Amino acid sequence: MNVAFINPFIESTLRSLDMMAGIAAEKAGLAIKEDLITTYDISSIIGITGEVAGSIIISVPSDLACKIAANMLMEDVKTMDQRVEDAIGEIGNIVVGDARRILIHDGHQVNISVPTVVVGKGHKISRSGDIPCIAIPFKTPYGDFEVNVGLKE
Amino acid sequence: MNVAFINPFIESTLRSLDMMAGIAAEKAGLAIKEDLITTYDISSIIGITGEVAGSIIISVPSDLACKIAANMLMEDVKTMDQRVEDAIGEIGNIVVGDARRILIHDGHQVNISVPTVVVGKGHKISRSGDIPCIAIPFKTPYGDFEVNVGLKE
Repeated sequence: MNVAFINPFIESTLRSLDMMAGIAAEKAGLAIKEDLITTYDISSIIGITGEVAGSIIISVPSDLACKIAANMLMEDVKTMDQRVEDAIGEIGNIVVGDARRILIHDGHQVNISVPTVVVGKGHKISRSGDIPCIAIPFKTPYGDFEVNVGLKE
Repeated sequence: MNVAFINPFIESTLRSLDMMAGIAAEKAGLAIKEDLITTYDISSIIGITGEVAGSIIISVPSDLACKIAANMLMEDVKTMDQRVEDAIGEIGNIVVGDARRILIHDGHQVNISVPTVVVGKGHKISRSGDIPCIAIPFKTPYGDFEVNVGLKE
């Protein structure tokens, strides 16, 4: 996969978490995954169509998800409820929307679908077919999370 | 939501299951869902962009998913493995691709993303935002499953 399609998602993840939730994240590596397995508790999935096709998955453990929702809403959020699902969906929307803006600025044509949020301890997400997937782990003071970019040119 | 965007998915679900897996399904109703909760074991999620935006979710219990994979591959499939994930992803692809063909024929412009497959007993899928979601339950001789159409014009 062209690195030009990866960097915008790293950039937009760092910026969106900082701007929306006041959380400073740090990229903690990069790995190619054959069959993607996500073990965090809540995931936001956004489909991509256009010049490249695939999906972006942002997967977050429940503690960090509650912290993100709490900071976004400026409310106390202690357990995974509808507010947390909406917040993680919204973060997905903002991260991918911001990356799309960068990609369009660089001359690429991409469209994004609305986020679908999956909740479930130990749920597993896999891509069927032959789409290469890059896993980008991030560290924050409130726990780690992962962004998965699976795109095919 | 315009019924013109629902019927193609019903039609293509019935046709795809019959053609790909030799399974005769039957529509068992239609319900509007506010906050979608899926309780089946494996789901294929496909994002939609274009004239309407949203996603289609096909959620299937494990027994039926194994039967679909077995019939598609003409192999014995007894437990949820990679073959089942691929088969359910592929069914999603075919159902939504076939519905897209009908929609384009009717003059609508829609693009579809590749399927993302979620596996997990009792996983929950919710849509953030204000997208109306129609749940379409289907019956088959091997168990029930559900197609969820969440689209916004």
